[in-house]
Amino acid sequence: MANSIEFFFDFSSPYGYFASTQIEALATKYGRDVLWRPFLMGAALKVMNAPPNVEYPLKGEYARHDFDRTARWFGVPFRTPTPFPVATVAACRAFYWTDAQDPKRAKEVAMALFKAYFVEGINIGEAENVVKVCADTGLDADALRAGIGEAAVKERLKAITDEAIKRNIFGSPFIIVDGEPFWGTDRLPQVEKWLANGGF
Amino acid sequence: MANSIEFFFDFSSPYGYFASTQIEALATKYGRDVLWRPFLMGAALKVMNAPPNVEYPLKGEYARHDFDRTARWFGVPFRTPTPFPVATVAACRAFYWTDAQDPKRAKEVAMALFKAYFVEGINIGEAENVVKVCADTGLDADALRAGIGEAAVKERLKAITDEAIKRNIFGSPFIIVDGEPFWGTDRLPQVEKWLANGGF
Repeated sequence: MANSIEFFFDFSSPYGYFASTQIEALATKYGRDVLWRPFLMGAALKVMNAPPNVEYPLKGEYARHDFDRTARWFGVPFRTPTPFPVATVAACRAFYWTDAQDPKRAKEVAMALFKAYFVEGINIGEAENVVKVCADTGLDADALRAGIGEAAVKERLKAITDEAIKRNIFGSPFIIVDGEPFWGTDRLPQVEKWLANGGF
Repeated sequence: MANSIEFFFDFSSPYGYFASTQIEALATKYGRDVLWRPFLMGAALKVMNAPPNVEYPLKGEYARHDFDRTARWFGVPFRTPTPFPVATVAACRAFYWTDAQDPKRAKEVAMALFKAYFVEGINIGEAENVVKVCADTGLDADALRAGIGEAAVKERLKAITDEAIKRNIFGSPFIIVDGEPFWGTDRLPQVEKWLANGGF
């Protein structure tokens, strides 16, 4: 099988959520699979000395407007949650705890977390909310609650975030096809052209 | 006739250049005309406390890569010039001096300036280069050289840049259709959908 598509994202990123609704169908169309790689984008923003986009003067209001319009563009449900953005350490750890056992299941967990935050307005910055959302997908709440605290899970998230920064992965979504980096939901048409032609 | 499309851009912006190669055909398709509005994006970056994108850690290298790929995507000639970015005060003033006499001619001047910088590598940060590029389109060099220094021309550029910031226009290109703001070349498909449907 051809190389997997790497899909880096932050659980608190609307554009990460939008991409999550598109990426699997796109990959399947071109015979690829997708490695989902949530990371802590805040670590990259720190290196860049940049605030989250909604906190910029001038840009902040536009960003919120663009979230809503982009949701309509893709035809997916969306509402900017409050608080926004939130820290996604617990969400990422829940993902990697599940991923270590069953990567397919981990994608379901990721989709449930995105939906909880961006559709239902559940604050996934709170660990107990993460546990509840994941339990609703069928995971064992107690096992997950313990899993989030495991050293190996914490280390996995740290390693992925360090790797992201080392590879200049600074935004969400950040999609890598055969080594070629694409930042942003708005690069999906270019991702598709790249997949179709092996580059352009 | 329907409202004009407002096309704000900075002459030192690759994405502004890419949009300049697309916007007139798109507007014509939907029976619109385009008001070209070069401004000094540096003033907005100052308000945002943000550096030019190529100067960000992590993001800078990606930005340069994305310029080249986006040029291939649109099938237009492009090379990141040196130095990059540059101050575009003279380029903007040359535009507005021409625009006051003949807006259609001013668009030709704008296209010539973009081509000089992003295709031929001429440093349009230098006023004398701006005069030369504009003279090659048929403008009178001496008249333009004097025009760039006119108080009314300077005031016009200042007013446009102040207006941009007041309207939260922080990037390039920044395209406004019937009051709806779109930032970035990558929003052109959304601009088209908006034009086709009167919103979405």
